[in-house]
Amino acid sequence: MSGRTDGKGGKGLVLVLTGNGKGKTTSALGLVFRALGHGFPVSVIQFIKGSWKYGELEAAKRFGDLLDFHVMGRGFTWKSDDLAKDRAMAREAWEFAAATIREGRHRLVVLDEITYAINYKIIDEREVIETLAARPESVHVVVTGRDAPEGLRAAADLVTEMQDVKHHHAAGVKAQKGIEF
Amino acid sequence: MSGRTDGKGGKGLVLVLTGNGKGKTTSALGLVFRALGHGFPVSVIQFIKGSWKYGELEAAKRFGDLLDFHVMGRGFTWKSDDLAKDRAMAREAWEFAAATIREGRHRLVVLDEITYAINYKIIDEREVIETLAARPESVHVVVTGRDAPEGLRAAADLVTEMQDVKHHHAAGVKAQKGIEF
Repeated sequence: MSGRTDGKGGKGLVLVLTGNGKGKTTSALGLVFRALGHGFPVSVIQFIKGSWKYGELEAAKRFGDLLDFHVMGRGFTWKSDDLAKDRAMAREAWEFAAATIREGRHRLVVLDEITYAINYKIIDEREVIETLAARPESVHVVVTGRDAPEGLRAAADLVTEMQDVKHHHAAGVKAQKGIEF
Repeated sequence: MSGRTDGKGGKGLVLVLTGNGKGKTTSALGLVFRALGHGFPVSVIQFIKGSWKYGELEAAKRFGDLLDFHVMGRGFTWKSDDLAKDRAMAREAWEFAAATIREGRHRLVVLDEITYAINYKIIDEREVIETLAARPESVHVVVTGRDAPEGLRAAADLVTEMQDVKHHHAAGVKAQKGIEF
């Protein structure tokens, strides 16, 4: 144990939500609303545009006093028309996220879908780990995305792997409003 | 495909969130807030007392217009002083849940931690599966709990297994406010 504690009896945790399952962003969403329920200021930084969708964005509006939401990334696709711009935006998202974590004003910071940018070497994994290690003691950080790299897992207090055992998309059912977006 | 659709373009799904991981109720929570963001009426029926905690209960209050929340179960423990009462309360919770699903007024019904009562044969799995199959077509049902039984998995559109790969409790860190409760 590192002994990291704060005056409010809280020790900030690093949670990694990974795996091939649908539930990563959904689970992060649950953590966000739990923290908001405690009256904690929360910042969500989205590294891939579109991972938060209509339902959660609308729900978030009821917490405008506590929740800061930032769509920073442009999204990666194999069909990108401007890879240099994608990379620059992901870097910028990370600089913003690192500053948010260091500032310590938010009790929960969500780095949504950041693993892609790390895995593509756009963001330096070591820099992320160092920023997490140096964070103010009351700050929880939730990291989501497929294939969380080894170093990041090692730096986490909790790693949850979400595996889709069976998925209705495979059976030809379209994504459903209120459940997936 | 069963071709279940409703006038609003929605097909109710059955989602099972299971596994040994911490994320089951958290993920259900995310689904609840997503659905609330769509303005969907939601009913959460808790089969084990205490699975929803302070943070989510407070957050839920901002959706009092849409969210019905029912703590029905008494909780199972090996130290229960009245097993017959525990069983009766779980049965009653199921009757209430089945009526809620059949009524179709809620677009999302969460059967939180119901699998324990099924696995202990307090609630009949076949009855659950039949109720799900006969539900109004617009109703989504989310089922959470460890060790979801085989028949229930087979009846689901999506099964997500949540595995804790690494957990800070193992390292002696206490449960943290805003993250776990």
